[in-house]
Amino acid sequence: MDAMISLAGKRILLTQAQDFMGPTLVPLLTKFGAAVVTDDRPLIDPDLPAQLVRDAGRVDVLIAHLGAPAPSTPAHEVGEDEWRLMFSAMVDPLPRLARAVLPQMIERRSGKILVMGSASALRGMKRASAYSAARGAQLAWAQAVGIEMAPHQVQVNAIAQNLVDNVTYFPPEVQANPRFKERIRWEMPLGRLVSAQEDSMFAAYLCSDAANCFVGQVFPVCGGWVPR
Amino acid sequence: MDAMISLAGKRILLTQAQDFMGPTLVPLLTKFGAAVVTDDRPLIDPDLPAQLVRDAGRVDVLIAHLGAPAPSTPAHEVGEDEWRLMFSAMVDPLPRLARAVLPQMIERRSGKILVMGSASALRGMKRASAYSAARGAQLAWAQAVGIEMAPHQVQVNAIAQNLVDNVTYFPPEVQANPRFKERIRWEMPLGRLVSAQEDSMFAAYLCSDAANCFVGQVFPVCGGWVPR
Amino acid sequence: MDAMISLAGKRILLTQAQDFMGPTLVPLLTKFGAAVVTDDRPLIDPDLPAQLVRDAGRVDVLIAHLGAPAPSTPAHEVGEDEWRLMFSAMVDPLPRLARAVLPQMIERRSGKILVMGSASALRGMKRASAYSAARGAQLAWAQAVGIEMAPHQVQVNAIAQNLVDNVTYFPPEVQANPRFKERIRWEMPLGRLVSAQEDSMFAAYLCSDAANCFVGQVFPVCGGWVPR
Amino acid sequence: MDAMISLAGKRILLTQAQDFMGPTLVPLLTKFGAAVVTDDRPLIDPDLPAQLVRDAGRVDVLIAHLGAPAPSTPAHEVGEDEWRLMFSAMVDPLPRLARAVLPQMIERRSGKILVMGSASALRGMKRASAYSAARGAQLAWAQAVGIEMAPHQVQVNAIAQNLVDNVTYFPPEVQANPRFKERIRWEMPLGRLVSAQEDSMFAAYLCSDAANCFVGQVFPVCGGWVPR
Repeated sequence: MDAMISLAGKRILLTQAQDFMGPTLVPLLTKFGAAVVTDDRPLIDPDLPAQLVRDAGRVDVLIAHLGAPAPSTPAHEVGEDEWRLMFSAMVDPLPRLARAVLPQMIERRSGKILVMGSASALRGMKRASAYSAARGAQLAWAQAVGIEMAPHQVQVNAIAQNLVDNVTYFPPEVQANPRFKERIRWEMPLGRLVSAQEDSMFAAYLCSDAANCFVGQVFPVCGGWVPR
Repeated sequence: MDAMISLAGKRILLTQAQDFMGPTLVPLLTKFGAAVVTDDRPLIDPDLPAQLVRDAGRVDVLIAHLGAPAPSTPAHEVGEDEWRLMFSAMVDPLPRLARAVLPQMIERRSGKILVMGSASALRGMKRASAYSAARGAQLAWAQAVGIEMAPHQVQVNAIAQNLVDNVTYFPPEVQANPRFKERIRWEMPLGRLVSAQEDSMFAAYLCSDAANCFVGQVFPVCGGWVPR
Repeated sequence: MDAMISLAGKRILLTQAQDFMGPTLVPLLTKFGAAVVTDDRPLIDPDLPAQLVRDAGRVDVLIAHLGAPAPSTPAHEVGEDEWRLMFSAMVDPLPRLARAVLPQMIERRSGKILVMGSASALRGMKRASAYSAARGAQLAWAQAVGIEMAPHQVQVNAIAQNLVDNVTYFPPEVQANPRFKERIRWEMPLGRLVSAQEDSMFAAYLCSDAANCFVGQVFPVCGGWVPR
Repeated sequence: MDAMISLAGKRILLTQAQDFMGPTLVPLLTKFGAAVVTDDRPLIDPDLPAQLVRDAGRVDVLIAHLGAPAPSTPAHEVGEDEWRLMFSAMVDPLPRLARAVLPQMIERRSGKILVMGSASALRGMKRASAYSAARGAQLAWAQAVGIEMAPHQVQVNAIAQNLVDNVTYFPPEVQANPRFKERIRWEMPLGRLVSAQEDSMFAAYLCSDAANCFVGQVFPVCGGWVPR
């Protein structure tokens, strides 16, 4: 392996490309040489994952980039709709994506899935039970599929991020809130939000061949909000 | 000499009481003084959680004991039905249980939920992606709700067990399988299955007032299969 | 196993019995039926561990209860003396205790070591580098020895505690400090210190036969300060 | 196309440069543009850390690369010499390095320490108690110092590696051993050793400015041997 890490020649499929980390990921992955195939829709429609992969053709890396706005409902008031929304947007697409994309990776004995997940599944937060539960399903899924796919030379891993600067979860009005600033001061060893660039760079690294050694692993990217 | 665990005067609601750890939990909790209210049905029906709690009256401790047989489908062949079954049996009942039981606990400023979860959400296993994902949702939910309920003097925690002797997951024919024995030898520092009694005893401890200090915590009970 | 958990007939050796959790542990373990053999000295003297075990005779459970006041030196000012003090009091006694006590346990195929450790090894804290490093050595040691001793039917585990009420680490003047109260509010999901009784009860449980299924495991007892 | 990792202009001090990962790290870091200052001695001599830093001048990144051959002594036979050797080689140099190198980093409000640690501190292994304990001290130290230094814009993190191909811990005769191969098959989801190149590449990433968002974090690099 050359010391030059790159994504040259890699076809990366990114879902929900205008939300969450999409606006930073696309140009960055492109800059490193990837051909990024994007779709902007949430993957609620059960047929969409198969269709996306069919349209994309060869997919070297799938970034399972599934987000939904985090509600702030007390745990005992979370209703069916909120629960269903969290899981249909962030969890149910996973096996559909797996069915669609893993066979070609297994056949080529090469490929990666990177789940852009959340550290809210690693450390409890108030008024985030539905969101956290869905994020927990993502991380456990990535761990399990990562172990299973490793012998096929297919690497599945997850980023568990929180307090990363992005419009979906930390829009300007949230960042300007004094209580939020106090929270950063107390909860965030880094002392600032992780930048979208930093988070996306790390994702890019995990998409590269340099990261072939990681399987079924969860990487916190949250400025020390969780230690491990 | 004092008893180390007392559940005297506690009303404990245990769901799916004939599966999984139920057959050991019921007599043990009773022996420690609890009045155990049981229901044997899987909680698939969305109205069942509310009905159970209504029928139970005061619930001091809810043991969210939700299981489903673990399929062994490859990750890329997991279909909609398997996925749905795992989540409808093990995950979707959680917010319904919360809506039903937390208000009375919050009002009394006293109560506990113990989720009987799985260590498969902490360490990846092959051909268990749907099951592990559902179990991951459970643990993350318990962490989040545990943090949120702590100020109400309500404690929510989870056991993350694996390789515990029970008829649902380790029936005699599995235990007799030579490959299973080899797996125990390599993967299980304890060198044997955790007994149903040991696991249930620990659950009983976590149901007692002695455990009021634990909130949003996940306790592996798996003989060292995961270290932490 | 009877549902009655007890320590009846168990000889428990507790070191540094007047510090840290000692004042609560001794009466509690005794109440549950244990014969508690205590020594009050820090185990700095290299010959002391062997001597304690020799004097104690049969030791069913060793509680490796090793503490030292936590300095608050910046990481770049920690000197040789502070470093040496932390390790000579809390770390270096471990192999000496192991040499002294494990052979009799291995021979009887029965025994336990419980390390009363600290969650400061699981989550970074400012101005606590020497202390945390020593505590980290303890936890890793307990994990390793726990895995190694499991086949001998000897269980080695650790409690990783923090924010537990005790005179050594949280004397009244610390607890009265407004900044400390603010820290509790922000960092401690439990909203209060863990009581000495709660922590000691859990230790008692881990000393009992009910806990024979735990090997090489680290149990946080810190009111949610670390989730796992 | 941009380079994903650049260490251009960075002066990196690497200790024990001929052992462990040194032979791969030096050329790789150099290739990425770093000026690598090396020393080949174990850091047993208490004055050596200060001297190395003095001789190095400006140090942008210190790689605390401290290793010692792992003994395979049963826990109850570990003697004073083995214990002392592990800690004097791998642990005691840490505060000396901190005293020597952190002040210049704090003054410049820029700098990094990367501890090349071991996953043996995260998952127990037999006959490795002294080694694991020392490695546990390293990780806990990195976490604590990482949290403390974050406000100074100095990042301290650790790699927790195991089963990485290197001459110090996995020489050819070990790798050829049938029992070792069986261990890989059972314990190593990746199915092979992590290559020295993969591990060093990740270290290089963590030395770069792209990794400014990580503080007090432990990164397992062990092919899934520990999940997190």
